Amino acid sequence: MRYRAVISYFGAPYVGWQKQLNGISVQEVLEKALFQVFGKITPTVASGRTDAGVHAEGQVVHFDAVTSIPTDKIPFAVNAELPRDISMLFCEVVDDNFSARFSAKRKTYCYRLYLSQHIRPLLEQTHAHIMQPLDVTAMCAAARIMEGEHDFKCFEATGSARENTVRTLYSVAVECRPLAFSTSNVIADQKKVFDAEVEIFVTGNGFLYNMVRIIAGTLVYVGLGKLTPQDIADILNCGDRTKAGKTLPPEGLSLIKVEY
Amino acid sequence: MRYRAVISYFGAPYVGWQKQLNGISVQEVLEKALFQVFGKITPTVASGRTDAGVHAEGQVVHFDAVTSIPTDKIPFAVNAELPRDISMLFCEVVDDNFSARFSAKRKTYCYRLYLSQHIRPLLEQTHAHIMQPLDVTAMCAAARIMEGEHDFKCFEATGSARENTVRTLYSVAVECRPLAFSTSNVIADQKKVFDAEVEIFVTGNGFLYNMVRIIAGTLVYVGLGKLTPQDIADILNCGDRTKAGKTLPPEGLSLIKVEY
Repeated sequence: MRYRAVISYFGAPYVGWQKQLNGISVQEVLEKALFQVFGKITPTVASGRTDAGVHAEGQVVHFDAVTSIPTDKIPFAVNAELPRDISMLFCEVVDDNFSARFSAKRKTYCYRLYLSQHIRPLLEQTHAHIMQPLDVTAMCAAARIMEGEHDFKCFEATGSARENTVRTLYSVAVECRPLAFSTSNVIADQKKVFDAEVEIFVTGNGFLYNMVRIIAGTLVYVGLGKLTPQDIADILNCGDRTKAGKTLPPEGLSLIKVEY
Repeated sequence: MRYRAVISYFGAPYVGWQKQLNGISVQEVLEKALFQVFGKITPTVASGRTDAGVHAEGQVVHFDAVTSIPTDKIPFAVNAELPRDISMLFCEVVDDNFSARFSAKRKTYCYRLYLSQHIRPLLEQTHAHIMQPLDVTAMCAAARIMEGEHDFKCFEATGSARENTVRTLYSVAVECRPLAFSTSNVIADQKKVFDAEVEIFVTGNGFLYNMVRIIAGTLVYVGLGKLTPQDIADILNCGDRTKAGKTLPPEGLSLIKVEY
């Protein structure tokens, strides 16, 4: 029987989704738990890898198993064998030719930032820290320009060997919320937001290596005024990675949802 | 010179705000950093203690120091000596008779819950996990009944020795947001909310021992249908701790703001 499961994990302690020799991966820990539950080596296939330190709120995996455990009880059985930073949220039976990787149609990521002079300890493990105020209105305008089908070569980590770098982004949305404690006196320019949390949601049919972290870094450059929304169209056209923003750190990134 | 500083901390690794023999406290770590910066033992007084595991986004402390460091640079100097789970957000000079403890007029706490069948690793360290759906509308009605001046003896940990248990709650507010991944099929009763994050904000002129955690536990009982909003008035009148809800765990609690 083939199963499709939704997995959430806090990525900080892990070398990423995929099993590798240099440390403990989410996949390795999950497969050990599946072995305990099903009594048999149970390989998993995820919708895609996530990098070291990246989180997931809705990663999807498939695996094959023969078990008498009712399907809706499988998450309880598996979670009893998992540490508290990895959790199976849902499990269902799917067709034998379903692939978590190849059947995926759309993915949504969220990149989270907080804007503050000083570290905010409660956000430190799930957000990138930006020490300057950002023009969120300009970031929203730039985000809209990124939507649609484009060659995203400029938003791919250099050295990637992928042939086809054309992808479609269905939505790039920037949301902003004030933080509880604010030192409003430090905002010189009223158009910019500070002491705030910013979430960048990106939904697309596929993503290049580091693409969301480079998109977030480019939107931060727009927010700082180093790039204008109009520059985004030029960067997409030129395909030059060096024109886009920096790759932001992994702790701000979370895989939110995979659609099939 | 007397200084007033705003401090934020992630409480999980600490035995609480106050220095004690059985483990590392936030106060001890902060005072070690102040010693490094000012070259002199610098005792701190906080607006109040927070318990082991409780967080703060806007704790206020005062301390006396003689330094040539400009006041707005003090947080940078202190944070350079602090671990990443404690942070000074702001510092200003205050009158010599200011007391972070005795001058406090209002405090705001937030108690955070998430409602889900399974652990959500990204919320696990800052929220309490409730495995059942809750009627948030009923919780809002019950919260409104708690507002005002009451004898909160029923919402105080048993064994507390305080004489006067009359306090004023200026505001008790319940907010609710859906979580990214939802298994909507598990909600039988449409009036109840599931796969959601719930935040309970409580502002008052003072708080008894464990009061916010008992208020949150009582509101959860209302959300579950074990108590009605009308029962809350009776519980406040009878002053019997055993009639109120359970004390929820410390990781959901955060001191948001202290006003003077």
